[in-house]
Amino acid sequence: MSTITLTAQELAERLGGALQDCPADRPLVCVMPLDEAVESAVSFLANPKYLDKAQNSHAGLILCDTKTVLDGRPRLIMQNPYWGFAQAVELLHPEPLPAWCEAPIHPSASIGEECRIAPGVTIGANSVVGPGCVLHPGVHIGDDCVLGEDCEFFSGVVLYRRTKVGDRVRIHANSVLGSDGYGYVMANGRHEKVPQVGYVEVADDVEIGAAVTIDRGALGPTRIGKGTKIDNLCQVAHNVQIGEHCLIVSQTGISGSTTLGDYVTLAGKVGVVGHIHIGSRSIVGGNSVVAKSLPEGSFSTGFPARPHRQWMESQAALNRLPGILKKLAKVSQKD
Amino acid sequence: MSTITLTAQELAERLGGALQDCPADRPLVCVMPLDEAVESAVSFLANPKYLDKAQNSHAGLILCDTKTVLDGRPRLIMQNPYWGFAQAVELLHPEPLPAWCEAPIHPSASIGEECRIAPGVTIGANSVVGPGCVLHPGVHIGDDCVLGEDCEFFSGVVLYRRTKVGDRVRIHANSVLGSDGYGYVMANGRHEKVPQVGYVEVADDVEIGAAVTIDRGALGPTRIGKGTKIDNLCQVAHNVQIGEHCLIVSQTGISGSTTLGDYVTLAGKVGVVGHIHIGSRSIVGGNSVVAKSLPEGSFSTGFPARPHRQWMESQAALNRLPGILKKLAKVSQKD
Amino acid sequence: MSTITLTAQELAERLGGALQDCPADRPLVCVMPLDEAVESAVSFLANPKYLDKAQNSHAGLILCDTKTVLDGRPRLIMQNPYWGFAQAVELLHPEPLPAWCEAPIHPSASIGEECRIAPGVTIGANSVVGPGCVLHPGVHIGDDCVLGEDCEFFSGVVLYRRTKVGDRVRIHANSVLGSDGYGYVMANGRHEKVPQVGYVEVADDVEIGAAVTIDRGALGPTRIGKGTKIDNLCQVAHNVQIGEHCLIVSQTGISGSTTLGDYVTLAGKVGVVGHIHIGSRSIVGGNSVVAKSLPEGSFSTGFPARPHRQWMESQAALNRLPGILKKLAKVSQKD
Repeated sequence: MSTITLTAQELAERLGGALQDCPADRPLVCVMPLDEAVESAVSFLANPKYLDKAQNSHAGLILCDTKTVLDGRPRLIMQNPYWGFAQAVELLHPEPLPAWCEAPIHPSASIGEECRIAPGVTIGANSVVGPGCVLHPGVHIGDDCVLGEDCEFFSGVVLYRRTKVGDRVRIHANSVLGSDGYGYVMANGRHEKVPQVGYVEVADDVEIGAAVTIDRGALGPTRIGKGTKIDNLCQVAHNVQIGEHCLIVSQTGISGSTTLGDYVTLAGKVGVVGHIHIGSRSIVGGNSVVAKSLPEGSFSTGFPARPHRQWMESQAALNRLPGILKKLAKVSQKD
Repeated sequence: MSTITLTAQELAERLGGALQDCPADRPLVCVMPLDEAVESAVSFLANPKYLDKAQNSHAGLILCDTKTVLDGRPRLIMQNPYWGFAQAVELLHPEPLPAWCEAPIHPSASIGEECRIAPGVTIGANSVVGPGCVLHPGVHIGDDCVLGEDCEFFSGVVLYRRTKVGDRVRIHANSVLGSDGYGYVMANGRHEKVPQVGYVEVADDVEIGAAVTIDRGALGPTRIGKGTKIDNLCQVAHNVQIGEHCLIVSQTGISGSTTLGDYVTLAGKVGVVGHIHIGSRSIVGGNSVVAKSLPEGSFSTGFPARPHRQWMESQAALNRLPGILKKLAKVSQKD
Repeated sequence: MSTITLTAQELAERLGGALQDCPADRPLVCVMPLDEAVESAVSFLANPKYLDKAQNSHAGLILCDTKTVLDGRPRLIMQNPYWGFAQAVELLHPEPLPAWCEAPIHPSASIGEECRIAPGVTIGANSVVGPGCVLHPGVHIGDDCVLGEDCEFFSGVVLYRRTKVGDRVRIHANSVLGSDGYGYVMANGRHEKVPQVGYVEVADDVEIGAAVTIDRGALGPTRIGKGTKIDNLCQVAHNVQIGEHCLIVSQTGISGSTTLGDYVTLAGKVGVVGHIHIGSRSIVGGNSVVAKSLPEGSFSTGFPARPHRQWMESQAALNRLPGILKKLAKVSQKD
């Protein structure tokens, strides 16, 4: 991704922290999560919950705050390591400017055989469109995208740069893949942007409805598994991982970094919080709000979601409650 | 719609079932619902609930499973008749390829007098735009669409093929009419697509907000009645029938095949399940979930929606409940 | 805005009411809210709640109904003053036709230095794009818009006419600013349109996600304050005023004329009714429905939203309720 190199010392100067247990001349070329990081990568620890991960991380430099005890790990001590992380991403992963030219289809793009490309389609630099694809009027594909075979994208579909799409993927009108995730860090009384430099990856045989939004990962991918079908107006946040053959019904929203197993069904208008896991073959009833991880094969409903049967019982009881309270009031008056 | 003819025998060979009580050479040209089907049509019975309809259907061939007793009706017996139906639709109603050419406005399209067509508009083959229409930059109209008089479509509006729109219809930016309904059938561990070959029909004096999605019918139309107003970011699923002069407020979603009478109000963020009816002049409070049919003139709120007054009382009781339970705990400790 | 002048008498003839305490030849040039109106403005009183405002209004003419006692104020008495208002807006604030020409970028538009304008972008008459802006393929900017410096709009963003955007504003793909608010008045059994002639104003350093809809004001602006961040698929209705540095998370909807202070957080899928105020530094939990104004620093959850702690307790009690009712049933059987 990145060809920029900064030494630990240079990074410390830019971000304004104190370097400890780290060679000043260590070369750093990218930002990575604690558990994936290699020696040339910067990582960060903002939540003490992940202290263990930090202790075992292979990161070449870990941004952490003044209260964190992280003996022996190469680290950069600062007040707000999450803000430091945001700045490090910006320094090491700058977004290239889009490579537009006069031609709607960039000369460096590659279009497979037997594609049907409508008027008003734009395709960015270095993008590859597989054979047999059909792109309707007004589809916009950014730079460095890859489309497999026999995809059909309807009018107004937008792919941000670096989106990867498998074979036989259908995307309906005005859906957006690869928009920035919703990531900010409070610094100096402002919400500073955490640059979003990941991408979206969609596997084979996925169908995506109209006006769906799928954000790219902050780092790394947001993933939609093979054969999954997403209905209109759904929101899939950054770094969500959806398994294979899931059904995500209309107006559902899935928050950042949540993972779904395979064959999961989220009925319409479901909301799912971030950083949880929904086990394979789970069903969530319409309009429910999933606030905790769900085991495989679960069936949940409600706000917050609870086992479906429990929710049904509690709603039945709730309907009886006003009458019961009235009766109790009468009884206690009699006493 | 279709000019393909298959004999019953040919269809049986393609779908792999056993033909019963049906002439092998019966010509079949289309797929239709049980209660509308004619002798040249294929229909299907996947839910025993509709056995009566099947018994009385005029369909030339009914796909049904091995357990169904449907004596005397011409039928094709198979393991998964819904999957058979999906395949029959694909065979008899193949979607034509879009008829693009170099010109953004296809030479076969007809544009009425005093229309204002902005740069970047595309209009498909055989489409008819009535007089006095205003199409803003980036409107995309598919093949075989019909627009009445004095319509105004804002930028990014997409009409899929065969959409029909009446007079004085306003559609705001980035709304989509005619995208595929969300229809799949589980076969061989995959969600196989049920081809969506219907269309959207919008009557006179309808206004549709921004980023609304209205799916075309699976077979036949999804209909929006005269004078109905639909707010931003609403979802109308396949084969929904909305009556006249309804108000559908922002972020509401209506599931497949549900019907609304006239003068219905669905306040913001309402969810409605599929295959129910909401009676005329009904009001549903914001954020409610309608899970059952509602009679004319009803006023409902809640999740699930119940009569508004009942919901108010249950919420008031719910607020008192923690205090009451605490008191009870104290009392029982004293005993 | 408007250069049309009607006398009070002319307006009375067009709208069909009886003029009282008003010079027949008073010139009227615009429509304004009661509390902002000047002598050349028409205003209206449809809700007796605002009688005080009407008594103190400087409006040159107030439309009111036959039951309203509004002695001394210049007024036009009619059956349906809201419908009169809608017609007055149409008469005094007619929307100009869009000024398209062959060129996608209108010759009267002004583009700042070092802008990057992609193929397929359209920019309307008299619009001003500040220096350093990046407009991706398929961005559509209406007439009379103003963009500050260093904005980035992704593909399919639509700005209706008269939208004003500050510096460093990022708007993601397929978002819509300036669509008509959802305003109708029942007259003669139809929902007649209340013309929406206001605009959208977005301050500096705002980021707006993908497929967001922000309606223009009915009269005057809908405002998004400095540094506020709006996530994908949110709806902001007409005349909403959002303060500075707010976080509006995905799929949230805010109804008309509601105001938010600064540093407000609305978590995902929140619904807010119209005409209320949410105090600064308030937090509303995901999926909640705010039905009443909230004080500064509040933390609310639920449907309807209540103090977060109270909601947690009521849900815990609700989960226990079925068991308690069963126990009670047993006890009373024993008695």
